[in-house]
Amino acid sequence: MTTLQDCQALDAADPLRPLRAHFTLPEGMVYLDGNSLGAMPSAAAARVADVVTREWGRDLIGSWNSASWFDLPQRLGNRVATLVGAGQGEVVVTDSTSVNLYKVLHAAIAMAQQNDPSRRVVLSERANFPTDLYIAQGLCAAQGLELRLVDAQDIPAALADPHAGGVAVLMLTHVNYRTGAMFDMQATTAAAHAAGALTIWDLAHSAGAVPVDLQGAGADFAIGCGYKYLNGGPGAPAFVWVHPRHANRPDLKFMQPLSGWWGHAAPFAFTPDYQPATGITRYLCGTQPIISLSALQCGLDVFTAAEALGGMAALRTKSLALTDLFIQLVEERCAGHGLGLATPREHARRGSQVCWTRDEGAGVHGQGSGAYAIVQALIARGVIGDFRKGDGGNGPHKDILRFGFTPLYIGFEDVWNAVEHLRQ
Amino acid sequence: MTTLQDCQALDAADPLRPLRAHFTLPEGMVYLDGNSLGAMPSAAAARVADVVTREWGRDLIGSWNSASWFDLPQRLGNRVATLVGAGQGEVVVTDSTSVNLYKVLHAAIAMAQQNDPSRRVVLSERANFPTDLYIAQGLCAAQGLELRLVDAQDIPAALADPHAGGVAVLMLTHVNYRTGAMFDMQATTAAAHAAGALTIWDLAHSAGAVPVDLQGAGADFAIGCGYKYLNGGPGAPAFVWVHPRHANRPDLKFMQPLSGWWGHAAPFAFTPDYQPATGITRYLCGTQPIISLSALQCGLDVFTAAEALGGMAALRTKSLALTDLFIQLVEERCAGHGLGLATPREHARRGSQVCWTRDEGAGVHGQGSGAYAIVQALIARGVIGDFRKGDGGNGPHKDILRFGFTPLYIGFEDVWNAVEHLRQ
Repeated sequence: MTTLQDCQALDAADPLRPLRAHFTLPEGMVYLDGNSLGAMPSAAAARVADVVTREWGRDLIGSWNSASWFDLPQRLGNRVATLVGAGQGEVVVTDSTSVNLYKVLHAAIAMAQQNDPSRRVVLSERANFPTDLYIAQGLCAAQGLELRLVDAQDIPAALADPHAGGVAVLMLTHVNYRTGAMFDMQATTAAAHAAGALTIWDLAHSAGAVPVDLQGAGADFAIGCGYKYLNGGPGAPAFVWVHPRHANRPDLKFMQPLSGWWGHAAPFAFTPDYQPATGITRYLCGTQPIISLSALQCGLDVFTAAEALGGMAALRTKSLALTDLFIQLVEERCAGHGLGLATPREHARRGSQVCWTRDEGAGVHGQGSGAYAIVQALIARGVIGDFRKGDGGNGPHKDILRFGFTPLYIGFEDVWNAVEHLRQ
Repeated sequence: MTTLQDCQALDAADPLRPLRAHFTLPEGMVYLDGNSLGAMPSAAAARVADVVTREWGRDLIGSWNSASWFDLPQRLGNRVATLVGAGQGEVVVTDSTSVNLYKVLHAAIAMAQQNDPSRRVVLSERANFPTDLYIAQGLCAAQGLELRLVDAQDIPAALADPHAGGVAVLMLTHVNYRTGAMFDMQATTAAAHAAGALTIWDLAHSAGAVPVDLQGAGADFAIGCGYKYLNGGPGAPAFVWVHPRHANRPDLKFMQPLSGWWGHAAPFAFTPDYQPATGITRYLCGTQPIISLSALQCGLDVFTAAEALGGMAALRTKSLALTDLFIQLVEERCAGHGLGLATPREHARRGSQVCWTRDEGAGVHGQGSGAYAIVQALIARGVIGDFRKGDGGNGPHKDILRFGFTPLYIGFEDVWNAVEHLRQ
């Protein structure tokens, strides 16, 4: 049996342990919600203060040049690129994840329609993150396409089915927000391409959490979140990647439909006609919130520090060790309390979170699942996780307890303590 | 002749003078570029530090409730509403001006098309802000509509012309960015409605600068900028207003096409189907940059302080006195140097900026207009204005020197000093 001392020994031997010092977290808190809002890098306070008082307050509009505000979306994008297997100049940080999804889904549909107008299906996972489905519903309704939702395991069949109408675009979230299940990006992209479909990957629960190789997978489009595992601060701007083979399409002038000034080929020429910039810059639209963008820089700086300690590969090794330990300890120490593992045991199919279902009727006096009360009791003890409501026995979805493990600042003793509180 | 002493006397008698103390500006600078990036409210540094270290760093995801992050777009929107003649609950602060224009133009087109599909024209001013035209070009191309651009004075005729095809939407910027010329919102809206068209007003150079009465004018949609006269910080999120008569249209489910989770009727229910929220909340999409949003709150707080001193009416009186004085002093003291007034003299047609053309050939050795060199020399002396390039003699647009007057922090002696540097 693993003991507290074993966990402490794992921390002592952890080569990534120095990274914890880059964050400020409340004393005694075990923060397992970095997949919802990442913790604050300690450097953020000074960085943001400098942006406010010096760049804004003192240098004012001069900071567009002197502080390089103008290329901040590209500079931050280049840092994100190193975490997701994209090249330099291929990523911009801008707008929100939902807005960026709208851009790339519109672009992918435009490309697919130009190539083969008979393809009328956007395919996705039924359990995809709801806001992604909302965006796709709107675009499909506007363009007379069908949004087809299937279970994750049925995606290969749905792609290959010759009687089902052609799939134009496959839109998936790489790591599922409810279960932590992860798609094989390379195999799924290959299956989509074999079926003649373009791919869009939402990396909200992947970037900074698991190794991602967009170029290696030959993916087409990707978007992701700045405020989860990238620790960019509340509502930090999101990112967008387009494979260079799709980035310049002068024939599809408005494929990126949010055709604002910052994506213009000559943004300061004030010409009356829109001409898209080359490359990923085209995916910018309006002026960006510089203070929030600057805070994200501090989150990305921690990944630069992690490079010297093994980078994403080392972070992945630790993430799997943390989630393996959490699964093992919960199953050893909390057995018989109605918890069921919702996250794949197989490493290749697991993100950086662990989710447990709780059976209906397992709550106090046999009422409900009790999962909400458990999560609230954990929060009261300083163990921060998430509750995700199921369908109350009316469908296949049970209530979920969700715990995210950010290897940058979570240690093995944290895992022990979380499980001990859960057991109690 | 007006003297420096006269200007100092005007400052001494200015009831709004205490508001200057709410801002931090570099010593000795005359900042006439608040129409590009507003100055920093002194409270911003402490407010932003609190958001970063307490709301994010300490309270983490709990701040969605405890710091009311979730209704920040509405709370700030209610403050903006008081400055533009909108009701409470009718405005949200979110996204960028260009993204918000895309939302409302898409919505207006959807409504107009449902009402009368034969109307195929979006009408705007030829000299409208380029990014507004870019957004309209994209939407018109996607929907097979015509974007028709005419000069400002020809808009009534273009609306009324029965042979020109029906105008679906009239989209205008209230105060022109190049000239400071202001439309009569009430008369222009009435003319559009008489012609059966909906109206969209871009208030980028109006909100916080001139009195605006959206409800009084019976306007349909409006958007505006957070970082100009509202002093919200670099790239601060923008705002969007929809008249309550148009806010609920369940029949046009995706009229606001950026159908993300924050505009959902039940954003935390994680239901797979999009259902738009009622009212202006529908115009939200993805998660917003909370740190940048919070800085805007400090800019709006200064307007709350201004309320006790007469509010927008008093600010307008001072703004006109400042721009009148600037026009008078430049014409008295800089005569014979090729400057021509580009801004209307008539108060009702003037925003809060004054622009001068400079003749081609008026530069050193008869080369070019010299306007760029003048603006650079002024900046070197601490008088911050803008240069806007003309067409170099190849068309009707001369080079422009642009000076914005924010009555919250600009005084009459500042005007004297700016003109004295310009004269030298």
